[in-house]
Amino acid sequence: MSDHEQFGRLERNKQNVVAFYDLMFNQCRPREALERYAGATYTQHNPGVGDGKSGFIAYFEDVAERYPGKRVEFKRVIAEDNLVVLHCRQDWPGDHVWAGIDIFRIDDDGKIVEHGDVLQIVPQEAKNPNGMF
Amino acid sequence: MSDHEQFGRLERNKQNVVAFYDLMFNQCRPREALERYAGATYTQHNPGVGDGKSGFIAYFEDVAERYPGKRVEFKRVIAEDNLVVLHCRQDWPGDHVWAGIDIFRIDDDGKIVEHGDVLQIVPQEAKNPNGMF
Repeated sequence: MSDHEQFGRLERNKQNVVAFYDLMFNQCRPREALERYAGATYTQHNPGVGDGKSGFIAYFEDVAERYPGKRVEFKRVIAEDNLVVLHCRQDWPGDHVWAGIDIFRIDDDGKIVEHGDVLQIVPQEAKNPNGMF
Repeated sequence: MSDHEQFGRLERNKQNVVAFYDLMFNQCRPREALERYAGATYTQHNPGVGDGKSGFIAYFEDVAERYPGKRVEFKRVIAEDNLVVLHCRQDWPGDHVWAGIDIFRIDDDGKIVEHGDVLQIVPQEAKNPNGMF
């Protein structure tokens, strides 16, 4: 693959991951998000979410009902090889604002096949003035 | 910059970030780590750590004393442009095992000038069998 092709592939992967996350999280359509953007399988590493597509749909349909208006904002999108990293601010109304960094693995066709993340409540006070993002 | 030069720069940035983190965290030498790998300034986004080089040294000298034997293991290193992402497993003896994803910004000379992260305790039980890494 040429460098030009590799660059195009990274940009495609970024666009797919951002569109997937927006569709399932902000627009509350996890089933459709998987249909459009996931590969044959979806391996989940977030310990609070069940494995595979069924676990993903069950979790995000549940929180869509319990946290109406939840929003994610993408602060940074970083890609290399078959990975895409998102640095996110998640606002869960009635709960907290969370900072999250997600790592997605993308197959050769640009489909998402694996996800892991780390999540942390953004504290009210901090020892520096820079914010978490 | 040619694609070949850009690739070399990403590899250099990755090596510097991993060496920096190993030196300050595993080898407990935060002051030396900054001297060797940080740029003119060091902007901190982790809300538990003070800003700048002095905040960094104070924090990591303190935890070096309070958590002897703490270890970080690098599970993934991802780089694009002037950013390096680390997916880490941190073992704090007497506390917990933590999952962390760090994002570092690197200047044109390969020096680290900014850091943010998200940290989460790895739970004992999970809704999938895949682990957090």
